[in-house]
Amino acid sequence: MISIKALEEKILKEGQVLSGNILKVGSFLNQQIDTAFLKEMGKEIARLFGDSGVTKILTVEASGIAIAVAAAFEMDIPVVFAKKGGAKNMSEDRLCAEVKSFTKGTVNTISVDREFIKNQDKLLIIDDFLADGNALRGLLSIADGAGATVIGACTAIEKGFQGGGDALRNEGIRVESLAILDEMADGEIKFRLQTNAM
Amino acid sequence: MISIKALEEKILKEGQVLSGNILKVGSFLNQQIDTAFLKEMGKEIARLFGDSGVTKILTVEASGIAIAVAAAFEMDIPVVFAKKGGAKNMSEDRLCAEVKSFTKGTVNTISVDREFIKNQDKLLIIDDFLADGNALRGLLSIADGAGATVIGACTAIEKGFQGGGDALRNEGIRVESLAILDEMADGEIKFRLQTNAM
Repeated sequence: MISIKALEEKILKEGQVLSGNILKVGSFLNQQIDTAFLKEMGKEIARLFGDSGVTKILTVEASGIAIAVAAAFEMDIPVVFAKKGGAKNMSEDRLCAEVKSFTKGTVNTISVDREFIKNQDKLLIIDDFLADGNALRGLLSIADGAGATVIGACTAIEKGFQGGGDALRNEGIRVESLAILDEMADGEIKFRLQTNAM
Repeated sequence: MISIKALEEKILKEGQVLSGNILKVGSFLNQQIDTAFLKEMGKEIARLFGDSGVTKILTVEASGIAIAVAAAFEMDIPVVFAKKGGAKNMSEDRLCAEVKSFTKGTVNTISVDREFIKNQDKLLIIDDFLADGNALRGLLSIADGAGATVIGACTAIEKGFQGGGDALRNEGIRVESLAILDEMADGEIKFRLQTNAM
């Protein structure tokens, strides 16, 4: 399993802080994928949620897919990913939500064919980044539309200073992030101490 | 490793042929992911290309990511995925290509930060579907722009009757597909016999 510290070190070493509160981690997470590191992140998610009765992982394309697959391999459960926009190979009976992208500044409709989430499902929602929480809220809304239970949500990197994760925690949702950045001003990164950490 | 036969049976059992030559395999490949099956597909790709000196897998978001990660886990190499459109967390120095989507009917610019593909890289290009070959050609063009070597391309499902795969093979590119459909008329699926199959 990855230690929280290993991910923090990776962020400090390879991450780049760009203007507008953008953290670029394309070298290992969301454009180039460090496969060995991804596998360790999957193991850590399995450690956090493996005993919670999760039946399925729900994520959203595109960069959530890699980490969702890594976790699913460890937990032996299927992944469902919500799609952005429509495509001819989707059914008309879909669960939809509107999501504003922090990095792209656009609003997307994300959707899942209704047949892939059932009301008996116990979902773990996974994404690579948690900033304002818009993507997670979209996925929560889709889970709600299916009548499914949400066991919790897990993201690789949370920008704690944007407040999206804590707002969800205050609403009673279990949200775990493998690393939480509480400060990123002037390129100076400060991590939140997590008691659940390995 | 997956046998070609296992994938063919899965396509026959779970795939749905929709109008306009659309094959829907959302139940196990490109919306819901059958994790155990995906892992086997990764092993089969590693069998086909494991000895070819591949240094990196190149794919395109979104549904290529899962199968690329599955193969990369087996081959212990990194994945790079091209992104559609722009985002604030990408650099300005990008390798770009235009790609027409068969299922969406749209033209997308796909791009990769130049820093993630080097001219010494030996690439395996992976995608979930091969129809007209537009996505593979876009990725080949990106590889070419980086001066990288392309060892070959591998897709899960090729619609052979659309000719994109054979056109690339005729140009001397090694293209492997785990299942090739040579006919899909009236919902009747016929697979191509592959000599390389397990």
